[in-house]
Amino acid sequence: MSLARLWESLLPLGRDNRTGGYRRYSWTEADLACRDWFRAVAAERELPVHADGNGNLWAWWDPPGSPPGGPRTGAVVTGSHLDSVPDGGAFDGALGVASGFAAIDLLRERRSLPVRPIAVAAFSEEEGARFGVACLGSRLLTGAMDPGAARELRDGDGITLADAMAAAGHDPGLLGPDPALVDGIGAFVELHIEQGRALAGSLVAPLGVAEGIWPHGRWRFDFAGQADHAGTARLADRRDPMLPFAATVLAARECAGRLGTLATFGKVVARPGGVNAISSTVRAWLDARAPDQPGLDETVEQIGVAAGRAARQHSVAVTVTAESRTPPAGFDRALRDRITRLLATAGTDVPALPTGAGHDAGVLTAHVPAAMLFVRNPTGVSHSPDEHADPEDCEAGVAALAAVLENLACR
Amino acid sequence: MSLARLWESLLPLGRDNRTGGYRRYSWTEADLACRDWFRAVAAERELPVHADGNGNLWAWWDPPGSPPGGPRTGAVVTGSHLDSVPDGGAFDGALGVASGFAAIDLLRERRSLPVRPIAVAAFSEEEGARFGVACLGSRLLTGAMDPGAARELRDGDGITLADAMAAAGHDPGLLGPDPALVDGIGAFVELHIEQGRALAGSLVAPLGVAEGIWPHGRWRFDFAGQADHAGTARLADRRDPMLPFAATVLAARECAGRLGTLATFGKVVARPGGVNAISSTVRAWLDARAPDQPGLDETVEQIGVAAGRAARQHSVAVTVTAESRTPPAGFDRALRDRITRLLATAGTDVPALPTGAGHDAGVLTAHVPAAMLFVRNPTGVSHSPDEHADPEDCEAGVAALAAVLENLACR
Repeated sequence: MSLARLWESLLPLGRDNRTGGYRRYSWTEADLACRDWFRAVAAERELPVHADGNGNLWAWWDPPGSPPGGPRTGAVVTGSHLDSVPDGGAFDGALGVASGFAAIDLLRERRSLPVRPIAVAAFSEEEGARFGVACLGSRLLTGAMDPGAARELRDGDGITLADAMAAAGHDPGLLGPDPALVDGIGAFVELHIEQGRALAGSLVAPLGVAEGIWPHGRWRFDFAGQADHAGTARLADRRDPMLPFAATVLAARECAGRLGTLATFGKVVARPGGVNAISSTVRAWLDARAPDQPGLDETVEQIGVAAGRAARQHSVAVTVTAESRTPPAGFDRALRDRITRLLATAGTDVPALPTGAGHDAGVLTAHVPAAMLFVRNPTGVSHSPDEHADPEDCEAGVAALAAVLENLACR
Repeated sequence: MSLARLWESLLPLGRDNRTGGYRRYSWTEADLACRDWFRAVAAERELPVHADGNGNLWAWWDPPGSPPGGPRTGAVVTGSHLDSVPDGGAFDGALGVASGFAAIDLLRERRSLPVRPIAVAAFSEEEGARFGVACLGSRLLTGAMDPGAARELRDGDGITLADAMAAAGHDPGLLGPDPALVDGIGAFVELHIEQGRALAGSLVAPLGVAEGIWPHGRWRFDFAGQADHAGTARLADRRDPMLPFAATVLAARECAGRLGTLATFGKVVARPGGVNAISSTVRAWLDARAPDQPGLDETVEQIGVAAGRAARQHSVAVTVTAESRTPPAGFDRALRDRITRLLATAGTDVPALPTGAGHDAGVLTAHVPAAMLFVRNPTGVSHSPDEHADPEDCEAGVAALAAVLENLACR
């Protein structure tokens, strides 16, 4: 099958052979290899590719007889992203891009022809794994992120986004909103592996549609104390930032449990980082999500209060900085109903489910009718090498996506 | 003065200009620059230098008329180390090496001549900042560390000590004990900045002598859970290793306070390290020290129990590995008394003080009469760019060291 072949060719790119996980950070070699893969796959299908000013890739299947270079309107766009979190799974993002191409293959086998432009898109830096802002490519495209601020974002080695893009041959001066491109989109449908167990669990269905995305964000906690020798500084003289950090981790879990929200510290950097040195600073990032905005605000507020209290106890300073905040994203109700009815008519019931994960579709939904298709994940595990979807479920996803594209864009 | 000039030339090497701290990790460029400095300083003084099989450097001042290449016996050795912790201070280790050369300058100004060999030594990887084992150079020299195991030690990038030494032009096949060299040492006197505030506080003295070194060690805690998506995994389904790690940090502090010992987590690595990923593993290092061995054993035991309990609560596995253990080190009583009397006669009272910090002298004391001189540290801060000693106190240290070397090695 077409998806299997596409999948095989993408699998080796950016994989760490020790962990089996992916490290496809934007504008690194692994990411550039994925971009080359995208261009090669599109070229095989004679789909012209263009990179927009933000480095998002678009492969176009235009209606027969379209004037070359003419403006595209009412386009039906699918796709997702190719970048990964550190040691991420193979499916997150990549499945949506590969399935877009496989769906076009399926439509061509059926000799369907578009009456509106169809595109497969791959958005840049969706995970925010390198520059810290999730959905960076779609945020820039839609004007939800300031291009000047984006250029100054730095990775863990201090390299700016501007320098990373320039080194990869992409002019960072082109960053910014592209209203003509966005206005030309009639609908956006993102296929994605489910990052939970709703479909595998109580719903017992290979596919689902997104109801909405929980509000979420990331907050940086900077604890600043005083470096000293671990073997000589008296406990009473210490200003060890590791202690309030630890108290904050436990407070976050307690608070999320009590409020029915999610709160996670998955990244921490202790400086100077010597085994026999008391830390001078501990920097850690809180990922928080909630079913609604007041629940999220309350969660972050309470964790901040706990951090402040613990820091004071240890004569440590703490600052909390919001690095990104994403409001709740509702998807287009008419588009979702249309997809649900269409697939039900074809014999596939697709239940609706909410999600705590952010997606480019959640950014685009503020500007164009957007929807998401989820593919069942037997364990629910994601952001891990253990992430998995069964091949039959993936093929069902391609078939459903082809049906949706055909319904929206073909005669 | 001679010390000031030596000091000026060493200060820029391996300094990070953003933090002002030092990153002189063994066998890196910064360390090789320090080794070149050592050789140049010795060459200026016509002191022949040799590197032993473990990469420790020795600059020799032989008695006039010694047969070249003949065995050296009864040597009086001073020195310390040139490597640093991450963002360490300028004085830790380096002051002892520079003071050794400055003391020789002082003896030569006085036209003193040795009747036994005098040496200034710089031991490799004293801090264990790169390969994880403190006092690695002196441990290998004295047979306290197996050379095969040492060759396989890896730094944070997975590079072995063997490869790092080979890349720096040093044959790792030569690692191992050197009984002839050790047996030729009649006394070892290490000068070091105090890493506490005893001299600056209640003792009010510019210099002190070491009473003994607390037993201490480092233990690696490996918490293994399950990576997952921070935005979708339910709290109840998580196996997040960050949580038991946090609980262990707090338990360590509580336990040390209760037992009158020291316990510190200053280094932590969370994998995969994505902001929106639940960690698969958290690896952290405990530095623990106590006035006596039972106190240390009890501290580590109780922290291990707390870690196991917290890990079980979160369905996380934990293993605790002792990376290094150093028994209490008593220094040679006769040598200490001789130094104390000598300096008192010259008008300088040097009080005796215990220390929680490990030193090469603490390793050598099992094999040769060893002693330590401490130089006052006004703030007590060490392992930090803020570490400081006043120039007058450093000069007093050189004068005292010169008097000791003269007494032990000159007519």
